[in-house]
Amino acid sequence: MNYMEIALEEAKKAYSKGEVPIGAVIVKDGQIIARAHNLKETLKSAIAHAEILAIEEASKRIGDWRLNGAEMYVTLEPCSMCASAIAQSRISKLHIGTFNNDMGACGTILNILDYDIFNSYVTINWCYNNECSELISKFFHERRK
Amino acid sequence: MNYMEIALEEAKKAYSKGEVPIGAVIVKDGQIIARAHNLKETLKSAIAHAEILAIEEASKRIGDWRLNGAEMYVTLEPCSMCASAIAQSRISKLHIGTFNNDMGACGTILNILDYDIFNSYVTINWCYNNECSELISKFFHERRK
Repeated sequence: MNYMEIALEEAKKAYSKGEVPIGAVIVKDGQIIARAHNLKETLKSAIAHAEILAIEEASKRIGDWRLNGAEMYVTLEPCSMCASAIAQSRISKLHIGTFNNDMGACGTILNILDYDIFNSYVTINWCYNNECSELISKFFHERRK
Repeated sequence: MNYMEIALEEAKKAYSKGEVPIGAVIVKDGQIIARAHNLKETLKSAIAHAEILAIEEASKRIGDWRLNGAEMYVTLEPCSMCASAIAQSRISKLHIGTFNNDMGACGTILNILDYDIFNSYVTINWCYNNECSELISKFFHERRK
């Protein structure tokens, strides 16, 4: 199972809790150091996006806010809060499952990573993963009904 | 003591811990529901900005991620992570002590609140508070020495 598939497993956990299905995994030196899914409603916190929870877990795990050399796999393009958190935590590479047409901040609506303000450079790898895209579409389709 | 002075008290707590001195207070219905200061180094977390910690505390306090009607007082212009968190938590009004020339995301470097992506509208009140400005300048001046 590749890392994006593990992120998708996390997204499916969010789905099963009625949360917007987004999952994130952080890998460093070939090891998963954090995995998380969106828990905004469960934790009653606008901050509790998958990416933020994963960064908090990874920082706790390695005992440093600097995650240089780490890579994040996330099923949906991060919003501007999460993209900024990724840059500020100095994650080196970001693998994105699919576009976020509503609030994607890694190129779709804006590109937070283009602003040279965080003393960091995050490389983006777009994965064009169909399952990531279908899961989020399915969720919003069902919610509209 | 007005709310910005209380935010400044929080910033001074951060200063005394060797943290970048930024403080935030959230007020709802005339009551302080959260106060926090930057704890990035102490908590070893890139997420632990004053604004984020205050939002988390306020949400816990009222049992909802929706902080509609709440106002935040923050000593320094929020970065893009915090500005996005403020918008997504639906804080109604943001009182800013002074500009952040390095990464201010409420107008100085970019304006996150101008993007109509969060289903929210945050009014900004610039306070031009000298003490907010002097405290942060003093911190960086001392650190450079």
